[in-house]
Amino acid sequence: MNPNQLKQLFDDVRRRKLSPDEAVEKLRHLPFEDLGFANVDHHRALRAGMPEVIFGPGKTPEQVTEIFVRLAQGENNVLATRVSPEQARAVRRRLRKAEFHEAAHALTLTQETTVYGKGNIAVVSAGTSDIPVAEEAVVTAQIMGNDVQHVYDVGVAGIHRLLARRDLLARARVIVVCAGMEGALPSVVGGLVGVPVIAVPTSVGYGASYNGIAALLGMLNSCASNVTVVNIDNGFGAGYVASLINRLP
Amino acid sequence: MNPNQLKQLFDDVRRRKLSPDEAVEKLRHLPFEDLGFANVDHHRALRAGMPEVIFGPGKTPEQVTEIFVRLAQGENNVLATRVSPEQARAVRRRLRKAEFHEAAHALTLTQETTVYGKGNIAVVSAGTSDIPVAEEAVVTAQIMGNDVQHVYDVGVAGIHRLLARRDLLARARVIVVCAGMEGALPSVVGGLVGVPVIAVPTSVGYGASYNGIAALLGMLNSCASNVTVVNIDNGFGAGYVASLINRLP
Amino acid sequence: MNPNQLKQLFDDVRRRKLSPDEAVEKLRHLPFEDLGFANVDHHRALRAGMPEVIFGPGKTPEQVTEIFVRLAQGENNVLATRVSPEQARAVRRRLRKAEFHEAAHALTLTQETTVYGKGNIAVVSAGTSDIPVAEEAVVTAQIMGNDVQHVYDVGVAGIHRLLARRDLLARARVIVVCAGMEGALPSVVGGLVGVPVIAVPTSVGYGASYNGIAALLGMLNSCASNVTVVNIDNGFGAGYVASLINRLP
Amino acid sequence: MNPNQLKQLFDDVRRRKLSPDEAVEKLRHLPFEDLGFANVDHHRALRAGMPEVIFGPGKTPEQVTEIFVRLAQGENNVLATRVSPEQARAVRRRLRKAEFHEAAHALTLTQETTVYGKGNIAVVSAGTSDIPVAEEAVVTAQIMGNDVQHVYDVGVAGIHRLLARRDLLARARVIVVCAGMEGALPSVVGGLVGVPVIAVPTSVGYGASYNGIAALLGMLNSCASNVTVVNIDNGFGAGYVASLINRLP
Amino acid sequence: MNPNQLKQLFDDVRRRKLSPDEAVEKLRHLPFEDLGFANVDHHRALRAGMPEVIFGPGKTPEQVTEIFVRLAQGENNVLATRVSPEQARAVRRRLRKAEFHEAAHALTLTQETTVYGKGNIAVVSAGTSDIPVAEEAVVTAQIMGNDVQHVYDVGVAGIHRLLARRDLLARARVIVVCAGMEGALPSVVGGLVGVPVIAVPTSVGYGASYNGIAALLGMLNSCASNVTVVNIDNGFGAGYVASLINRLP
Amino acid sequence: MNPNQLKQLFDDVRRRKLSPDEAVEKLRHLPFEDLGFANVDHHRALRAGMPEVIFGPGKTPEQVTEIFVRLAQGENNVLATRVSPEQARAVRRRLRKAEFHEAAHALTLTQETTVYGKGNIAVVSAGTSDIPVAEEAVVTAQIMGNDVQHVYDVGVAGIHRLLARRDLLARARVIVVCAGMEGALPSVVGGLVGVPVIAVPTSVGYGASYNGIAALLGMLNSCASNVTVVNIDNGFGAGYVASLINRLP
Amino acid sequence: MNPNQLKQLFDDVRRRKLSPDEAVEKLRHLPFEDLGFANVDHHRALRAGMPEVIFGPGKTPEQVTEIFVRLAQGENNVLATRVSPEQARAVRRRLRKAEFHEAAHALTLTQETTVYGKGNIAVVSAGTSDIPVAEEAVVTAQIMGNDVQHVYDVGVAGIHRLLARRDLLARARVIVVCAGMEGALPSVVGGLVGVPVIAVPTSVGYGASYNGIAALLGMLNSCASNVTVVNIDNGFGAGYVASLINRLP
Amino acid sequence: MNPNQLKQLFDDVRRRKLSPDEAVEKLRHLPFEDLGFANVDHHRALRAGMPEVIFGPGKTPEQVTEIFVRLAQGENNVLATRVSPEQARAVRRRLRKAEFHEAAHALTLTQETTVYGKGNIAVVSAGTSDIPVAEEAVVTAQIMGNDVQHVYDVGVAGIHRLLARRDLLARARVIVVCAGMEGALPSVVGGLVGVPVIAVPTSVGYGASYNGIAALLGMLNSCASNVTVVNIDNGFGAGYVASLINRLP
Repeated sequence: MNPNQLKQLFDDVRRRKLSPDEAVEKLRHLPFEDLGFANVDHHRALRAGMPEVIFGPGKTPEQVTEIFVRLAQGENNVLATRVSPEQARAVRRRLRKAEFHEAAHALTLTQETTVYGKGNIAVVSAGTSDIPVAEEAVVTAQIMGNDVQHVYDVGVAGIHRLLARRDLLARARVIVVCAGMEGALPSVVGGLVGVPVIAVPTSVGYGASYNGIAALLGMLNSCASNVTVVNIDNGFGAGYVASLINRLP
Repeated sequence: MNPNQLKQLFDDVRRRKLSPDEAVEKLRHLPFEDLGFANVDHHRALRAGMPEVIFGPGKTPEQVTEIFVRLAQGENNVLATRVSPEQARAVRRRLRKAEFHEAAHALTLTQETTVYGKGNIAVVSAGTSDIPVAEEAVVTAQIMGNDVQHVYDVGVAGIHRLLARRDLLARARVIVVCAGMEGALPSVVGGLVGVPVIAVPTSVGYGASYNGIAALLGMLNSCASNVTVVNIDNGFGAGYVASLINRLP
Repeated sequence: MNPNQLKQLFDDVRRRKLSPDEAVEKLRHLPFEDLGFANVDHHRALRAGMPEVIFGPGKTPEQVTEIFVRLAQGENNVLATRVSPEQARAVRRRLRKAEFHEAAHALTLTQETTVYGKGNIAVVSAGTSDIPVAEEAVVTAQIMGNDVQHVYDVGVAGIHRLLARRDLLARARVIVVCAGMEGALPSVVGGLVGVPVIAVPTSVGYGASYNGIAALLGMLNSCASNVTVVNIDNGFGAGYVASLINRLP
Repeated sequence: MNPNQLKQLFDDVRRRKLSPDEAVEKLRHLPFEDLGFANVDHHRALRAGMPEVIFGPGKTPEQVTEIFVRLAQGENNVLATRVSPEQARAVRRRLRKAEFHEAAHALTLTQETTVYGKGNIAVVSAGTSDIPVAEEAVVTAQIMGNDVQHVYDVGVAGIHRLLARRDLLARARVIVVCAGMEGALPSVVGGLVGVPVIAVPTSVGYGASYNGIAALLGMLNSCASNVTVVNIDNGFGAGYVASLINRLP
Repeated sequence: MNPNQLKQLFDDVRRRKLSPDEAVEKLRHLPFEDLGFANVDHHRALRAGMPEVIFGPGKTPEQVTEIFVRLAQGENNVLATRVSPEQARAVRRRLRKAEFHEAAHALTLTQETTVYGKGNIAVVSAGTSDIPVAEEAVVTAQIMGNDVQHVYDVGVAGIHRLLARRDLLARARVIVVCAGMEGALPSVVGGLVGVPVIAVPTSVGYGASYNGIAALLGMLNSCASNVTVVNIDNGFGAGYVASLINRLP
Repeated sequence: MNPNQLKQLFDDVRRRKLSPDEAVEKLRHLPFEDLGFANVDHHRALRAGMPEVIFGPGKTPEQVTEIFVRLAQGENNVLATRVSPEQARAVRRRLRKAEFHEAAHALTLTQETTVYGKGNIAVVSAGTSDIPVAEEAVVTAQIMGNDVQHVYDVGVAGIHRLLARRDLLARARVIVVCAGMEGALPSVVGGLVGVPVIAVPTSVGYGASYNGIAALLGMLNSCASNVTVVNIDNGFGAGYVASLINRLP
Repeated sequence: MNPNQLKQLFDDVRRRKLSPDEAVEKLRHLPFEDLGFANVDHHRALRAGMPEVIFGPGKTPEQVTEIFVRLAQGENNVLATRVSPEQARAVRRRLRKAEFHEAAHALTLTQETTVYGKGNIAVVSAGTSDIPVAEEAVVTAQIMGNDVQHVYDVGVAGIHRLLARRDLLARARVIVVCAGMEGALPSVVGGLVGVPVIAVPTSVGYGASYNGIAALLGMLNSCASNVTVVNIDNGFGAGYVASLINRLP
Repeated sequence: MNPNQLKQLFDDVRRRKLSPDEAVEKLRHLPFEDLGFANVDHHRALRAGMPEVIFGPGKTPEQVTEIFVRLAQGENNVLATRVSPEQARAVRRRLRKAEFHEAAHALTLTQETTVYGKGNIAVVSAGTSDIPVAEEAVVTAQIMGNDVQHVYDVGVAGIHRLLARRDLLARARVIVVCAGMEGALPSVVGGLVGVPVIAVPTSVGYGASYNGIAALLGMLNSCASNVTVVNIDNGFGAGYVASLINRLP
């Protein structure tokens, strides 16, 4: 039931085609979610600057292309994550402006360049193997209208490398930290700054790392109070939440 | 917004105190869930014969008593599960008609005796240690208006004991099977009948039973296709779903 | 020992070829399971409308074909689950009437079209990736003689999509809900209806979803009391139990 | 080496008591962390409005009292979490102004009442058993200078209860959601709003809830992209991060 | 249906009170397991020398006493495992001849002293903390009519202690090995002998021993091919199976 | 030090080339394991009829062939387990008499045909997918000189199939039971017989079977006291231990 | 067979009471481990300075006292770990010189004060709650003759506290690091030094720390290559190995 | 800020271009880690004889080659671990002197042959399948300047094989023990020697070995006090720590 239909209902009451009781009854049996779409609109307002997002795995290059092209017809930016080179090539054959971020395994289409972020987002990774996850966070935050800086390969076993970049960390409004193996980096970073830190465990490691469990548990038990955690390898989620935080007025 | 208020809105439109546009706007900004209560009423109709339920653990005897007495003021039956003898005594001091089922650790107040069930529910347990969970299912199904029969201590290591009760199983419309340790009984029962079997893993066992994990996994992997599973020791849930199934028209 | 042989035994007693004691002794040493076949027959009555079922994985296309064709010689419907396109092609080369359900990875042969279900079965899925499991439930329920309706892509993070389909849910006699990731959908659906809900965790997700463990645990701990659970990705089992429930007289 | 000492070094060079080479050498062998204390000061600036925090478990009432009283001598607010009634009584015997929050198991001393938060923080709980964790988040956020609103007992199995409070959620700048059992509430809340949601799994539940693992995994796998997660029962951490987010300029 | 009833059936046929067809029909609907009791008798023959067994935990001293006394009225030996001193005292007040084995937490009544075992059973334990489990195996094997020898405190970190007892091991017909912590002893013992070794993981240890998981996994992965495993702390089961093996003719 | 060298030592003493003290000293510093070889010989006596065993995985066809041919030069039977068709072909090109057991993935060379077993070994499997593991047990027991009978596809969900083969089970001296999924079969078989049952969990199943964990835990928690367990899919180990038991004099 | 008996054997050969062949045969059947005792002596030499060790849990105060007093009669130092105050009091009533280390839950008797360690051992702890485990390592290393220094409360979330103590770390020959929660400290310490680091996960934490699993996994996956790990809370083991390393010549 | 720049600062003060206060301020805002490089130099001294290390997995042959060649330009030895034959070939095409250790999957370049180790390192493996991990430890220890001896295929099920090599073990200054399956070997070795033992669990095994978990847990729970543990399959780490221990002065 869209507003027009709703107005019709009131018109009918006014014109006495319907008694108030009949109108109540009629309204009562309407799917209330139609009214709810108003709320969705309101909600959509909140979503200004949010990209349309496609999750690549399990889709054929054709399917990714079809969805990507359809979403590109709106005015939002478009982001496809965990995209294979084949999927990327297929989309770019149709949409030359789409950009493939190889390290991030991400494909973006930038149609809106408003800067929504109020400050910088820093994305930190412990090792070079964590970079794909970190880059996914970077690309996500950028497509959502943020200034992003990255600090890579500053794992805790060489703490001076991290300390050397402390100024960059100190300037960030929110920080994403990606780490595999023991997942200790978010605690150290969290202790150096006074802003929210979003920790991303990565599946980097072998043996008792159990594809990221060790890092995940480490981060959940961080002794730094400003750390929250997202799913293993979920660079997108970290970049997304960091963007939401950074755009808070 | 209750129906009366809603009717007032339409009256106002009819009386031209409000234009249709104003009414639409007003309605639009109402919390739609108020309309939703109509659905709740409808839903409540489905809930006829459903008991009011209290979960005992973590509440003082006084708290259990207070909630129990308040719920008893409605017309529904009342069921309190995982009730300690102390909690039961406290309630019964106020409500003499409340009945304590010691084996089931359950307290009931029967205010309605309609039989909602279309057939029998059979509750089966593997060992004597599983009886408390089984009795919780029995009491739940009874307070929800079902004829319930139980078959206890028919574990799979003495298969003849189970086979000797096959007629009782064959007469049931739905069967609840409680078992700890290896949790194999639901598969065997499931193979003997053609009706739904609800499996309840119990925390009975020691060592590698891991408080019911072994039984839970066994039941989830049942080779009998008519078996579904509820949480460990969740006799209440099994009795509840069995009642829903048994009352299907 | 079939009934004829058994009758012969009694005839021999009647004709005094055997004394009652001799007959008792003879009967005693017979494998009792031969008598048991009577029970199987009785059991088989319960199984009217049950399909013959083949589990595809680990079988060559030739093996699937051979079994499928043999089962097709009976009068029952035939259902093969988790069938690869190759297996499906091999069967259909021999049995043109066999139908391949690509999304469900299922192959069916419909030889009987009796409607056994007393009402509708609703099959709900959280995301598009859960559809193969949901479709397996749909195909299973259909081949077992049920009217099935499906509601897809109504995950809990966009609750209005689910609420918009509440009427369809309200009309169902039993509901199957398939969800991966956090597996929250069955709880929400369970709270909206008063009928049994069968939850199917799917292996959809990554990282800490652990191939369906997160969803499985979530469903076992559902705060909705009308939810029971089957194994991860077990759409067949859910459709099967839903059919048993729906055919209860 | 404090700034005075450092200045002395330069003075010595200026006065030619030390050659530049000697000074470099001397500086080189100083523990660089002394310079680092300047950073700590800078860092401390960031910490304005941060409470001093005591973790109660494993400490005697005397130890808690001693630490609490000492911290109270600064100008910051003081917060003790997971405090037993005995510990609280012991502290309050010495510091009458300390306030015990029974439901939150927290003890606070308010010495500074600056409002640091830019907007509202909403704290949501699924069931009544989750309230202690939720209250810990509330108390933490309040002592850190935030306006906090709470919405309790709005679990997903009765979705209308949550929807009825949607306006309150829509007004929040950041939301904390506490849930045990299947931990589904953060996904639903996350889908209703466009702000960061911090999910706190609680150890509420039994059987396969495994003291919060089910809820934890559910939240990590949330299909809502604006959800991050803290440790099981870590209401403090959630309130702390929510405060950091809410105070971002 | 006992044999007498069955004979009556044949008598009725002989006397033409029943036609053969009627008899077949009647027999057909009888619970076949009644015939099955003949098999039970046969099975019971196999059970000669098997003790009646009571599992102590979860029973009141009165319940243990009642069951123990009733079982004592048969001719079999009686064994109660995991019996507390209180339970033992209660039984012995009624049955002076019952013997309490304090280390084994077991209570026995010896009414039959036949030696069923064909050879020796050796029971080996790694540490002194494993002795209660080992003693349970010893008592079980003794009450089942076996010569039992024990070798305690011969853990693998002092391999010479084990090697010094190799002769005793070499004389055994079957060996039970109890070990906690890393559970390595069964592999070493298994490599020294050519007879079956039954490994019992114990819950002895701390930290990453996880109450016997480490030992259990170690034993399941034994590189000695003659090792089988029972549940954690299941000394009874090991003694029982060892007895079955030792009595094989 | 071989026996000849040892005799030389005594000769030297006799011939007074060495004093007894010198001889003691010399002996003392000898690696005692040389004496130990005597024990190995003794041990080897116990190993009469034991096959030489090769574990196939991780070896090239050439490596398997080389080892197999070398072992074939002794007088023992030779058994290679988990052998691929390629490995088998390579061996058989060199040793025509080697026999490949396709279902068991095993390759055997029979050079000795003594029957060491005193009775029958029964090998039981729950489903057809468990047959490869069961066949590995069969082949192992046969090559070790046993009469073996198998009973396949008698899972607990169709209990009459198992009961129909009860006579065969009753005649066995030891029984191997292979089952995946819920792993319930050993408990039922264990309850039907009075001999040792060796349970082999198989990795058959999907979802929450976790490659055999469900079956393994089920078997460890068997309520039948005559069940011991080996590693997942370890048909060889079960056949080996069954052979040791069956050859006990 | 002790050396005297062995000499007797050679005497008999010399005196021709035994032929060399008979002597070889006799020697062959002797338990070789008697000769092995010589090795034990040799081994004991290695054990110079090793304390006698008692593990307190599960022993009565009387048992601890009895063992402690008996061991005190040798010349070695004596160490009892995980000792309760009651156990300590009981021992000290008999042995006034025994010293109770309250924080370490350890009881020591120093009878030998040789310094075996070649350098310093540093014991580091992340939080104050980790101190009992750290102190157990300290006491163990001291009683084994080492100079020990400790650095407590230098967790990674306040990295400057650790860096401020870098000199002390740089002077150590081997370092023990105790940490609970995320267990990140060993990686950071490992990166700062070039000597072996022994990591001790502690059970400090709550929720997803799982009594030390998070810390254990973190340490096993340390990105610092000089880290090895002992069991959770195993301060004794860490102190013991550190001592072995520190005494290497 | 390198030393030259630092000296410039002091020069400026001396030349009165800067006042001491200005210099303090300037120094204060410098990234202190630049001073820290002095510490790194010091640290580097400790690192004498440490190889440059490359971790092969996830890198293309070209990337490995590029890094290897660059590191080879220094004076240190170079070690690449987990290198595929393709990666090795690519490197060796550029650097003929690089040596591929096939069993160890390692590639080394020896540019420095100083013996840093003070004694022998023994590397022990339980089975032949553990050899790749053991060889990684051997190659690592050799490239770091140690004399290494290995003892392979001495698993605990044939204990005489290990005892026969006891002399070699007794001569080692530190021992690395690699074992999969039940991981029992380190405990036995640890009991035979008085030096540090570094245990390496390997992923060798199947079923309940869970890719090394069984071995890992076994080793963490070792009853030998001189055992520490590294990650599953981490032969490099074990060889590295053994080298650090062995070079202690």
